[in-house]
Amino acid sequence: MSATSVSPAILALAQAAKDASRAIASSSVEVRNRALEAVAQGMERAGHRILAAAAEDVQQAQAAVQRGELSRALVDRLELSPEKLASMIAGVRAVAPLPDPIGRVLDRILLDTGLVLEKVSRPLGLLAVIFEARPEAVTQISSLAIKSANAVILKPGREVERTARVLVEVIRQALREQTTIPEALVTSVHQRTEVDELLKLDGLVDLVIPRGSYALVRHVQSATRIPVLGHSEGICHIYVDAAAKFDLALNVIDDAKTDYPAACNSVETVLVHQSIAQSFLPLLYARMTKRGVRLRGCPLTRAALATAAIEPVKDDEWHTEYSDLILAVKVVTGLDEAIAHIARYGSGLTDAILTEDAEAARKFLEQVDSAGVYHNASTRFADGYRYGFGAEVGISTSRLHARGPVGLDGLTTYKYILRGQGHVARDYQGPHARRFLHQRRPPFGPQDQ
Amino acid sequence: MSATSVSPAILALAQAAKDASRAIASSSVEVRNRALEAVAQGMERAGHRILAAAAEDVQQAQAAVQRGELSRALVDRLELSPEKLASMIAGVRAVAPLPDPIGRVLDRILLDTGLVLEKVSRPLGLLAVIFEARPEAVTQISSLAIKSANAVILKPGREVERTARVLVEVIRQALREQTTIPEALVTSVHQRTEVDELLKLDGLVDLVIPRGSYALVRHVQSATRIPVLGHSEGICHIYVDAAAKFDLALNVIDDAKTDYPAACNSVETVLVHQSIAQSFLPLLYARMTKRGVRLRGCPLTRAALATAAIEPVKDDEWHTEYSDLILAVKVVTGLDEAIAHIARYGSGLTDAILTEDAEAARKFLEQVDSAGVYHNASTRFADGYRYGFGAEVGISTSRLHARGPVGLDGLTTYKYILRGQGHVARDYQGPHARRFLHQRRPPFGPQDQ
Repeated sequence: MSATSVSPAILALAQAAKDASRAIASSSVEVRNRALEAVAQGMERAGHRILAAAAEDVQQAQAAVQRGELSRALVDRLELSPEKLASMIAGVRAVAPLPDPIGRVLDRILLDTGLVLEKVSRPLGLLAVIFEARPEAVTQISSLAIKSANAVILKPGREVERTARVLVEVIRQALREQTTIPEALVTSVHQRTEVDELLKLDGLVDLVIPRGSYALVRHVQSATRIPVLGHSEGICHIYVDAAAKFDLALNVIDDAKTDYPAACNSVETVLVHQSIAQSFLPLLYARMTKRGVRLRGCPLTRAALATAAIEPVKDDEWHTEYSDLILAVKVVTGLDEAIAHIARYGSGLTDAILTEDAEAARKFLEQVDSAGVYHNASTRFADGYRYGFGAEVGISTSRLHARGPVGLDGLTTYKYILRGQGHVARDYQGPHARRFLHQRRPPFGPQDQ
Repeated sequence: MSATSVSPAILALAQAAKDASRAIASSSVEVRNRALEAVAQGMERAGHRILAAAAEDVQQAQAAVQRGELSRALVDRLELSPEKLASMIAGVRAVAPLPDPIGRVLDRILLDTGLVLEKVSRPLGLLAVIFEARPEAVTQISSLAIKSANAVILKPGREVERTARVLVEVIRQALREQTTIPEALVTSVHQRTEVDELLKLDGLVDLVIPRGSYALVRHVQSATRIPVLGHSEGICHIYVDAAAKFDLALNVIDDAKTDYPAACNSVETVLVHQSIAQSFLPLLYARMTKRGVRLRGCPLTRAALATAAIEPVKDDEWHTEYSDLILAVKVVTGLDEAIAHIARYGSGLTDAILTEDAEAARKFLEQVDSAGVYHNASTRFADGYRYGFGAEVGISTSRLHARGPVGLDGLTTYKYILRGQGHVARDYQGPHARRFLHQRRPPFGPQDQ
């Protein structure tokens, strides 16, 4: 830990959070679920205060919009109606029925008679989450932390500071008054310099989750030795194979592009097999135009749609995450070129092939190295809720620990529990050594000793 | 990737290795196992060259010992007899029968009729391994990389450079002549500056494994955005509870201290319940003295062993990894103090309780937050082979990705494969939305579509 350059205040705050994480680590899931209900009730009681704080945040933000310092879209995200607050409270309650991610026996191996090894899921410890200016993120992240028996230090976007402060206060009050869990389990900081200090505490903070821009993720990765869970750009591809059904392809591309263009799992580039370019591209153009999507294209695409005056894709634009109603289209010679294009320009999040050719699908699913590889389905399914995880901690484009949509399991580690009867390692060495049994046992079966 | 400050040679080397990792990623396990056999045969044929190179390394090292620049223990590690070479070759062959870590279906969820999600294990990609001056490490790491379909760039300790160069040559020749796997799968670099450049290639290198000193691990963690798998010091504790069987305790402590004192899973500190201090400590002293182990102690330990003139444990010495026949002993008031001592001074690797009291054991196993927590067993069991993993990639004290002894699974990631029939996300939204089924299916069962 490089704690020497960290202020005593931040060190104390992080230490208190870590201590709280140790206190909750051995708690039963009932205690944690009751804490979630206490938070929900606290939010109900504090409704007026929360809404008033949000109104102030919105007011400040509107002034900033008028000074040209903020976008109007951001103000929309800050707004908090009684209905939205009710849905935030429902969101907290929705975490309670999820399966307990802690204490699951992941593996069981009988090493020898009376010597049993278990691999058991455990909380990570202390999380630091840097997130965007959204009021609901505060309670969402806090609920997931409570459920997974982790402590969390929150750094909300500064435009939501007032609301976040009130929400954190409400959560801490609920923990303090209604539970045995230390309130230090949920803490917030509000200065960027405080974040910089937290990033130095690699002996205390176990995981940093930067939510927001890729630039933020990169900055955090460079500034810390603490593991980082985050995602790079979302540059998703759909490859329309020679054997694709056209109506299926148009429906899937429509969904993947227009359902929520700003999402990281929206499609940016469609790759089209050359043998169907002449027949498919006019249909794609018509459908996209109807849906308000502008196409950009490679030379072959532009030639096939000559009458439409499609804009060219500029050099290196294949790397672009438009996050908008813009779709880049490229004609490829076949599956191999599609796979190579994705390897070069993709961000490893989600890529799909549309085809009725089982062998082409098999090759694509095997060779495309992305967190999600799809056959005949929209890239928009890349989401923790849709995958059935119940809650989404974030999306990871790391290859370590967690990849793709991350559920509560992403906030856990494991430990090995070995139960013996005085067993020593020396007995398993040398010419008259005992032999290990190494028998895998059903993880949830009865005890062997 | 900060590739701007990387030399073209290293960039090309890393790119070739990455391309090789892509080429092997979809290979069958039969291809990879045949490659292991080809490497073993190549080593047999090149036996004389390998032994000659090792002899040169030893000669150079002996000269360095005479100049006082190297320890004699290091020279011992460099020595390569025909027997040791045969055991290295057997080690390569032993990796082939291990279960394939790639392509395992880890989870299967039926999202909706005809929409099936699978989580499948995949290779990590490109590994960079910085390791100690041991000839056998070269072939051990390379075999694990081949088995797990990963490419690897090796940086061996410089004292073993000649041997390592010949071994890497032999491995590459085997791949080139006997397999379809690109020889660039296994590469070595030999300059520290080359390592520094590799650490900048976070777009190409997927995992760095520094084996060796904790200082090396810290240096690598600070110098890179690439995930790092490594371990800190191994400061392991054994707590002898009031209800411990003395003979069991003496046997376990003997094994944990003397079996291999330099290992990270050897015990450094024994904590003794105060109620048994007077009776147990003289027995411990006698046993340890007989085994050549010197005790150091807290004031109460020294008082209990007054006639033996035990050295005191100096301030902060409880943090020390002796890696030697030295054992620190502390008398504690009970289980809670033992747990608190371990939380403060432990390195989170492996800690044990010796007791016949089931409740004390339960509390210790629950509350001690280490990668391994043991009841009535020696800390020396913390090892991939002993755990039944077949091979050990390393030991991790990280809480992310892999913790404790790491087997071949630690060199894998996973991807989600989604197979649909034109499914779009929009159909699952709004008032007339389709409902997800989210039915978990047996991972190895028949296809649902």
